[in-house]
Amino acid sequence: MSGVWQLLRPRSVAVVGASADPAKTAGRPVAYLRKHGFEGRIYPVNPKAADIDGLRCYPDVRSLPEAPDVAIVLLGAERTQQAIRELAAIGTGAAIVLASGYSETGEEGARRQRELREAAGSMRILGPNTIGLVNLTDRITLSASGALAVDQLVSGGIGLVSQSGGILGALLSRATARGIGFSKLISTSNEVDLELADFVDALADDPATRVIALYVESIRNPAAFRVAARKAAQAGKPIVAFKIGRSESGAQAAASHTGALAGADGMYDALFEDAGIIRAQTFSDLLDLPMALACERPLNGRRIAILTSTGGAGTLVADCLGLAGFDLPAPDAQTGAALRALQTGDHAALDRNPIDVTLAGLQPDLLRGAIRIVLESDAYDALVVIVGSSAVAQPELMADALRDSLALNAKPVLAYISPHAPRAAEVLSRYGIAAFHSPESVSAALGAMWRVRARGSAVASAPPPAPEPVSCPERGSLDEARAKALFARFGVPGVREIVVRSPAEAQRAAVQLGPRVVLKVLSGEILHKSEVGGVAVNVAPEDAGPRLTQMAADVRRHTGQTPEAFLVQEMVSGAAEVILGVHRDPLGTAILLGMGGVVAELIRDTTLVLLPEDGTALTAGQVEAALRRLKTWPLLDGYRGRERADVPALVDAVLAFARMAQSLGDQLVEAEINPLFVKPLGQGVCAADGIAILGPGAGGFR
Amino acid sequence: MSGVWQLLRPRSVAVVGASADPAKTAGRPVAYLRKHGFEGRIYPVNPKAADIDGLRCYPDVRSLPEAPDVAIVLLGAERTQQAIRELAAIGTGAAIVLASGYSETGEEGARRQRELREAAGSMRILGPNTIGLVNLTDRITLSASGALAVDQLVSGGIGLVSQSGGILGALLSRATARGIGFSKLISTSNEVDLELADFVDALADDPATRVIALYVESIRNPAAFRVAARKAAQAGKPIVAFKIGRSESGAQAAASHTGALAGADGMYDALFEDAGIIRAQTFSDLLDLPMALACERPLNGRRIAILTSTGGAGTLVADCLGLAGFDLPAPDAQTGAALRALQTGDHAALDRNPIDVTLAGLQPDLLRGAIRIVLESDAYDALVVIVGSSAVAQPELMADALRDSLALNAKPVLAYISPHAPRAAEVLSRYGIAAFHSPESVSAALGAMWRVRARGSAVASAPPPAPEPVSCPERGSLDEARAKALFARFGVPGVREIVVRSPAEAQRAAVQLGPRVVLKVLSGEILHKSEVGGVAVNVAPEDAGPRLTQMAADVRRHTGQTPEAFLVQEMVSGAAEVILGVHRDPLGTAILLGMGGVVAELIRDTTLVLLPEDGTALTAGQVEAALRRLKTWPLLDGYRGRERADVPALVDAVLAFARMAQSLGDQLVEAEINPLFVKPLGQGVCAADGIAILGPGAGGFR
Repeated sequence: MSGVWQLLRPRSVAVVGASADPAKTAGRPVAYLRKHGFEGRIYPVNPKAADIDGLRCYPDVRSLPEAPDVAIVLLGAERTQQAIRELAAIGTGAAIVLASGYSETGEEGARRQRELREAAGSMRILGPNTIGLVNLTDRITLSASGALAVDQLVSGGIGLVSQSGGILGALLSRATARGIGFSKLISTSNEVDLELADFVDALADDPATRVIALYVESIRNPAAFRVAARKAAQAGKPIVAFKIGRSESGAQAAASHTGALAGADGMYDALFEDAGIIRAQTFSDLLDLPMALACERPLNGRRIAILTSTGGAGTLVADCLGLAGFDLPAPDAQTGAALRALQTGDHAALDRNPIDVTLAGLQPDLLRGAIRIVLESDAYDALVVIVGSSAVAQPELMADALRDSLALNAKPVLAYISPHAPRAAEVLSRYGIAAFHSPESVSAALGAMWRVRARGSAVASAPPPAPEPVSCPERGSLDEARAKALFARFGVPGVREIVVRSPAEAQRAAVQLGPRVVLKVLSGEILHKSEVGGVAVNVAPEDAGPRLTQMAADVRRHTGQTPEAFLVQEMVSGAAEVILGVHRDPLGTAILLGMGGVVAELIRDTTLVLLPEDGTALTAGQVEAALRRLKTWPLLDGYRGRERADVPALVDAVLAFARMAQSLGDQLVEAEINPLFVKPLGQGVCAADGIAILGPGAGGFR
Repeated sequence: MSGVWQLLRPRSVAVVGASADPAKTAGRPVAYLRKHGFEGRIYPVNPKAADIDGLRCYPDVRSLPEAPDVAIVLLGAERTQQAIRELAAIGTGAAIVLASGYSETGEEGARRQRELREAAGSMRILGPNTIGLVNLTDRITLSASGALAVDQLVSGGIGLVSQSGGILGALLSRATARGIGFSKLISTSNEVDLELADFVDALADDPATRVIALYVESIRNPAAFRVAARKAAQAGKPIVAFKIGRSESGAQAAASHTGALAGADGMYDALFEDAGIIRAQTFSDLLDLPMALACERPLNGRRIAILTSTGGAGTLVADCLGLAGFDLPAPDAQTGAALRALQTGDHAALDRNPIDVTLAGLQPDLLRGAIRIVLESDAYDALVVIVGSSAVAQPELMADALRDSLALNAKPVLAYISPHAPRAAEVLSRYGIAAFHSPESVSAALGAMWRVRARGSAVASAPPPAPEPVSCPERGSLDEARAKALFARFGVPGVREIVVRSPAEAQRAAVQLGPRVVLKVLSGEILHKSEVGGVAVNVAPEDAGPRLTQMAADVRRHTGQTPEAFLVQEMVSGAAEVILGVHRDPLGTAILLGMGGVVAELIRDTTLVLLPEDGTALTAGQVEAALRRLKTWPLLDGYRGRERADVPALVDAVLAFARMAQSLGDQLVEAEINPLFVKPLGQGVCAADGIAILGPGAGGFR
């Protein structure tokens, strides 16, 4: 049994600092363990009590009759350290430290936390500042949370890991009221040792866990997290994550736009995208989406039937689904005929969708018949049933009909509960039917199912191996020509250009590259050339010489330095402009991709693709998918009769740029191409401007 | 008493088709009226019963002892018509028709609905297909809705008008469970007579209504609606509307982009913006925002304090508020000192925001002290209190402290309820404190308060009068030159241009307008000139003749017609491009405004400004506000060191374009300028291309 599983499913639990008074927080863990049916051995530790609730109480850790699998430490931060040292000394598997006053309180607390880690030695620690964990599958409560005071815990298929104990308690409380069950609940909090990734890894192995839900404040070990998330994906277990910290401002990189465009939260989007994690957009979706996915009924198409006995709510849900791009076709001829044959009244409109079975809420046979017809119809991929006011008084009528329908086939069946009908929601959840209170969540849940299906059906070609580390002899901030030469060595072509040092050379180069050229000052120090008068476009060959003279004067006036070299470049027209950058972040290294131009910049139409850290390289499929995420993707794809851009060449260039980032590793401090011109299909791409800053790091990916 | 108020507050009610069996739907209205304490006269009408629940029952309408203020008609559609005729004949004030089977079912039903209207004569009708209305202020229930079976209705400050009866029932059920009270509830449904606007108008006069909530499917009488909404605004009553039909595809206009860019739902945004209505973005916000606004505590700044005893939920709410752009400053020196002086423990961090008063949930004095300090601090404009798990068992502890704090000053006090704690939510609502279950709704509610405040403080300059109607002698689809000449007559300048008919004329014109010009085919029939080879840009004067010859051939090949006239125009560079269109819609006439260019088109960065219909014209303030709503507004405003565009000239041009639309009225079928070049500040604007289609309508605004 691995360390984490020893913690999740212990056979013996010591409760250090247990109180005999169940009204006190320190009295809860022993009481909860027994109340919820823990079948292992419980050892309360308290020098002031002889027994607690009939269990023998031990005066100290050293007196324990065996090394427990888990110890819950209920002492204050001051006394916790000594207890941890003693627990480690007797060979305890893992300790759960509830005390606060550690890194969450500042520098003094952080020091105390480091000491805690040292005291634990090889013993695993959950916390500190945690409310512990609950294994609902096996009815093992290792927590003092008041949320466990409920008479019965609902076990189910959702494994929840939260970096906040308070949020875990809130979710447990809300889920219990709705009949939504969990397999495991874990509050990792300060993560001095065990962290998100450890539990994602464990839950991927857990047969009772069908979906993993994460409340994330910050991922401390992104590499391990990515590995664990991939393992969960391979085990067929979707992960839904809600991440806070979305409002923090992004770090601004010095030389390039990349850092500003990436933002602080964009890297989490990239990480979740890379790991196949569904990001919950609202807090309530962190319960609603896992609830729906835990039903494990696959959505194989986007045609949704809505069955309603209350017109208004059906239309409301239909509107939300339509807004999310789902199809709501009217019943086809066969389905319509079957529905009409069923019909007894004359008002219900059975040839529309939402399919209105007015009064059916009170006529179980009609309702069951309609559900069966719609679920078995080839015209629909999923069924949403609107639960109306009749379910307030008689929730079983609708719920039983829905439960029985689950056996017909495996299509998703969801319920939207229109009035306040908590009992109906609870019964439906217990039957394995996702029941929603918000119409927007119905559409978010179907969207999540669709993403799971799309991921599952994607043909994952084996990624190529990561490139070999390359040592780069250059250092510092390269000038534009050297930056593009570097990019070209890795396979990103640049515009045709010639370095010149005099008006005469400029004129000769312009004739060669004409009919019109671009003239730029060339310097590793000047990063914003156009702001110092260092760029001229659309220059005729005969003007190139005088223009260089003028530019030299302008740049000197702005910078105080006399420029020595200039670039003459071909003018490229009729091409789309793309920005390409390398973004380094504690979460990993990513390639930033976006449409160029000032409007795209204003709307931040960029996306990030995280580089692999498992010895592989990016795939063309990943890059194409990223390009399609851009709002302005149609500009590359022949929008409104425009010529199609050379997307295959663009994908190759991005892959080359990414190979460079992996090969150079830490040596590459910053790199950006802006713009990369994407010419019409078959004509390739070329980098028109670039920045590269190289440092002393080692080659190879980080 | 106006007709609507006779309906909302009747002194006598006839219930036609009343059943003596309260278990039947037809038995409910009489039972509800008595149960909830209606103090007027009730007349059941049913030939088969002598009395109902002790009330004398009348065999038919003619036997009634007086003409009732209101009749609830519970008969089926077939028999309703006769009853309506009889009720009208005896002088009944208004009838509420519950029967379905009218316009919602198709053409036959629509015919029946027209007959119903005729049968009613001057008697007002609510419905058909309605669940009626409830005046909670005066405890008058005119409905058969099962939602009224509750023992006690919660009266409050929200007046709700819904075009769906089912949704009204759902909202009543949900609100009752949360302790949120209504003043009036009205289901207008098919609106054969009384409609949304009538009730918005009435609620604007209702002292018990502080906020108006609307569930909108479609506004049938936009002119009356705008007038009523303005009346509510003047009475200081915010309106919150949730509108469905958002997923319907927009009508595509034939000649211009305007229709496609406006979309079906954009006009509702424009209408709500014009009327000062807050649009609820989610269904739950239709309860949550009015709940918050009904507290009538003004938000005078954007600095929000969060007081929490559970770290996680405070951070969660802070993240949502930060995302919405609210400020969460740490306590200033004075406030921090006061909080520290209060503090008894040593762990809580009182110099941050969220302000963590751990354990304060169980220490009422500490909690009350902290609330008082924060509410009285000059550093904050509003307080959000996180209600944690202690409120599950003891909701009063927190609720009483919050209730008492309301007397300190008028700053908004909101509560976020972290666990499932329905009793806490209910108690808080009854105390007049908005209590939220979703962190996103807290930020939406503060956003709504801020909008109400911004509207209230805006200096509304008196709008200019609408322009006089003008009769336009032109008809049909004007060519570009005539279209721009029309726009110029109303004050929108065009680019310098010359109409030419031969290569020689083109060459002379190009010399005059050069150094480079644009050459276009000129025709009222060809609306997409560039698609038929009819546009050439950047033409040198010496090339203008040959280019014209080639263009004539190209156009002939594409269209089969030999073009006779061409336009030579000056090239405009360094200007921002704007699209300007007139959009006609059943909701009104609007000016579409948006940034030009293909990227802006892709992201649909446009906005609509509804033209006034009250004899006034648009104001410069309205146009400026619309421009600032564009995502790409910074492009006009000196973004990243660009030259500022001539926004004053742009505003003048939009006002001129709007004057044209009002003056020409129905005569103007379509009008669009695309692009309108906006030159640097001081250099004005000019229309570079335009479409105008004129019909036989009458001048003057519709």
